[in-house]
Amino acid sequence: MAQAFAYTVYRGTFIQTTRLPDSTPRPKTELVRNRGALWVSSADGRIKGFDWQARDEASFKELMTRNGWVDVDAPETNGYDGNEVRVKVVLASEESNEFFFPGFIDTHIHAPQFPNVGLFGSSTLLDWLETYTFPVESGFGAQADQPGGADTLPKDAPPSALRIYDQVVARTLSHGTTCASYFATVHVPATNALAALCHSRGQRAFIGRVCMDNPDFCPPYYKDLSADDSVSATRSTIEYIHALDPKGTLVKPIITPRFAPTCTRPALEGLGKLAAEFNPPLHIQTHISENTNECALVKELFPESENYADVYDRYNLLTKRTILAHAVHLTPDERNLIRQRDAKISHCPASNSALGSGIAPVRTLLDEGITVGLGTDVSGGYSPSILEAARQACLVSRLLGHTTSFCQKGEKHVHENGHADKPTIGREKLSVGESLYLATRGGAAVVDMADDLGGFDEGMIWDAQLIELGSVRDLSESPLDVLTDGASSLVKTGPVGNVDLFGSETWEEKIQKWVWSGDDRNVKAVWVAGRLVHSRS
Amino acid sequence: MAQAFAYTVYRGTFIQTTRLPDSTPRPKTELVRNRGALWVSSADGRIKGFDWQARDEASFKELMTRNGWVDVDAPETNGYDGNEVRVKVVLASEESNEFFFPGFIDTHIHAPQFPNVGLFGSSTLLDWLETYTFPVESGFGAQADQPGGADTLPKDAPPSALRIYDQVVARTLSHGTTCASYFATVHVPATNALAALCHSRGQRAFIGRVCMDNPDFCPPYYKDLSADDSVSATRSTIEYIHALDPKGTLVKPIITPRFAPTCTRPALEGLGKLAAEFNPPLHIQTHISENTNECALVKELFPESENYADVYDRYNLLTKRTILAHAVHLTPDERNLIRQRDAKISHCPASNSALGSGIAPVRTLLDEGITVGLGTDVSGGYSPSILEAARQACLVSRLLGHTTSFCQKGEKHVHENGHADKPTIGREKLSVGESLYLATRGGAAVVDMADDLGGFDEGMIWDAQLIELGSVRDLSESPLDVLTDGASSLVKTGPVGNVDLFGSETWEEKIQKWVWSGDDRNVKAVWVAGRLVHSRS
Repeated sequence: MAQAFAYTVYRGTFIQTTRLPDSTPRPKTELVRNRGALWVSSADGRIKGFDWQARDEASFKELMTRNGWVDVDAPETNGYDGNEVRVKVVLASEESNEFFFPGFIDTHIHAPQFPNVGLFGSSTLLDWLETYTFPVESGFGAQADQPGGADTLPKDAPPSALRIYDQVVARTLSHGTTCASYFATVHVPATNALAALCHSRGQRAFIGRVCMDNPDFCPPYYKDLSADDSVSATRSTIEYIHALDPKGTLVKPIITPRFAPTCTRPALEGLGKLAAEFNPPLHIQTHISENTNECALVKELFPESENYADVYDRYNLLTKRTILAHAVHLTPDERNLIRQRDAKISHCPASNSALGSGIAPVRTLLDEGITVGLGTDVSGGYSPSILEAARQACLVSRLLGHTTSFCQKGEKHVHENGHADKPTIGREKLSVGESLYLATRGGAAVVDMADDLGGFDEGMIWDAQLIELGSVRDLSESPLDVLTDGASSLVKTGPVGNVDLFGSETWEEKIQKWVWSGDDRNVKAVWVAGRLVHSRS
Repeated sequence: MAQAFAYTVYRGTFIQTTRLPDSTPRPKTELVRNRGALWVSSADGRIKGFDWQARDEASFKELMTRNGWVDVDAPETNGYDGNEVRVKVVLASEESNEFFFPGFIDTHIHAPQFPNVGLFGSSTLLDWLETYTFPVESGFGAQADQPGGADTLPKDAPPSALRIYDQVVARTLSHGTTCASYFATVHVPATNALAALCHSRGQRAFIGRVCMDNPDFCPPYYKDLSADDSVSATRSTIEYIHALDPKGTLVKPIITPRFAPTCTRPALEGLGKLAAEFNPPLHIQTHISENTNECALVKELFPESENYADVYDRYNLLTKRTILAHAVHLTPDERNLIRQRDAKISHCPASNSALGSGIAPVRTLLDEGITVGLGTDVSGGYSPSILEAARQACLVSRLLGHTTSFCQKGEKHVHENGHADKPTIGREKLSVGESLYLATRGGAAVVDMADDLGGFDEGMIWDAQLIELGSVRDLSESPLDVLTDGASSLVKTGPVGNVDLFGSETWEEKIQKWVWSGDDRNVKAVWVAGRLVHSRS
């Protein structure tokens, strides 16, 4: 048992992004660096203050003394008499180019699809669902030989389901994901198991039991029995999760109609009502406008709706707590409706490229005042890393100018007065700072926790990661020995991945190198609500 | 000193791609798996034979006995009497999902730009050159206080240049790159140092001193003094490299006009003649049609030429040993000319996305009979990994159908008879197997070594890597302990990166998981010409 302490004091460099103002078109977000100390209460895991002057040893000591703090790991250093407040100090090493960064928020990930990471062939959305996705998800059902009972408990799920879910939580934590909005499967016990695993491992999570009752679209081996079943099974997972975490401190349920084609109208209606039963209303997540064939199918299935977004709106599923994944092919009318409802968008660039869905016009969405975060969309997306999602967001934004939607249909910036600009070449590109905004504060806003997560503001929750880039390479010594002694020159690579620093980089350039060359090796430690939940082995 | 042996016998699983036939449009290449033993001569590093029956211990022993081989590490096992042929056995572990794979070939990489990996902001080609590239490359000049002398030797280069080049070679080897076609800088000592470092560390390399003498385009601080200087300084590096490696076993010079805008007509003419002086003619590398502004500039600078490709053709720089990097915006006429000359193309998808250049239509190039390989294009490309280039090649090919060039201009498949098909939706997508073909056999053909490199054919050189995916996760044990004991559940990640195997994967799916989730952690060992040049630390 660790020694109790009132605060953890984090020392070193802190990097975060600025908030995005409400004005439209929106200014670009930027990276901000602070150095000094920041303290987090052990009682509630929230940031209680910071001191950006306390950079050197003397001013840090002065901070400790001023607050009457004693370092639990070095009590002798300031005369421990039992009346001081005990604190734990965690240092980000300057020499190793370490810094604290807000935890990543994955606003769209399918946990049961994790075994399929990297398996998608040359398929597109609709055949991918049938070939890869429904078969793997169907394996999360309760065991046939299960003894009778409620069949809602994690232990009723197949062991393989628990093992896979455990690995998903482990992997995403190791990549710095402190909060994830998960799609599970239709199965109640396994869905509840995912909630229990997140709760136990300490990952903040929204857990959605997937609803899919349309027999015309869903395969017979993997579907809800009826619209009523969709709603009642969902209610069952909500009850389990509310019992597991009554205040929703860490884990919350989220209403999850898979997407319009998998759901009957009664199911959509029932789920909209179910979300509204609670106070505050429950979160909702689904997919929208990922693929052109999907858009055509929705038009055919819901002829009474004006457009895809309107299908959800009709059933009260388009709320300020709704996460819409993809949004690649939205019309201006749909974007307008989404903005009016303040529904949120999860941008999943790795998935949209992998399945050939297209490129979501993120700048247009942001400029029009829509809230956007990032999703890995495992396993449409091939990586559980939000850093990879940030990279892909930057890359595809640079290809947007070559797409038909951008060049022909014209993704224009619409001002408040309704006046539309011609496309501004280059403005569509997302910077590293902006993609990191999407990965942190953007994601926080998508899960309706913009005041709690995504940055290091006073009062926010300490969901954070310690990033280590490694030390700068010494360029002063020439490797002439290699030239003369090839025999001894077997290559050694560094302990912390692929980021190479040569000493001339500004701090902003170090962040760029992290985004473009970094991986989980650079994630040294991860905290959620102040609790250490991952430490690099 | 290691004990001498006549052969190395590699045992286990071998994966490679099929060759691409000459027919047009070309059939798709596929992955092939063999299991058994393959042996490489210590004398010349070439594959002397294989036995795909020798899978189990008994048949392997029988193979050893039949050939009169004795394992140098276990001589007692078959009665060592001094007359047997001594061999070293290297095993790829089945339990750890290890396999041998041909070494990667990077057909386009700028070694001096390595410190800029990840630094490109939102720039496009022409401003990127000015802002990021020319400044870093100019630092590779000889030191001002250098004592007099030839000023051509590696030791005359700045220590920082040697250190950076050494790191480039180390990093690329650690990612499995056994052969690279390097652009260096204009500086002779540093260019020669790069050759010496590759030779010493054992990486197969083409080393190009960059030629850029056009004062209207090149900055005054970084350019050749004249066209004569371009040619004579290039000749100087050729002489150094030919002295270093007289037979060109490992390292060869390559004529390198940077690209048309940086070169005057006399320089292009002189370089074309210089390449033709040798027998066989020297390799040539340059850039073509990367960016639309660049294409417009070339049209303006060379009004007498019919198109960009024709600029090079006029000066005998479009040969069957020419590597053209990028080729994003080629016209059908240019593709036709390139095919007639049998010049080769280096596809650099990471770079083309990062700099917003566009998407090269690889399937069209292949179908028309043009030879294509992959390039990282560090640091237009943000990664020194050809595996990352393979991933990006797959991804951008899936976005090609959304681009203006594909949908509007229509990338059609032109048959031998001149008949052009309508674009076939989906055919443009590259599979994992095809991207690995580009990374190995395709690259080998690009550097005009298709009979020597890129596969495990008898007689080929053993440029290879040992890939370890790690063992399969045991799904039979449920992690219920995590559910009940969160305190002990700090996450541990595996030793070999991000590939997660669950036991249900076919061998092809394991390769897909490697491509989509793998990195340098999966590269356990690398050989060039039979010599171990990298071993994971």
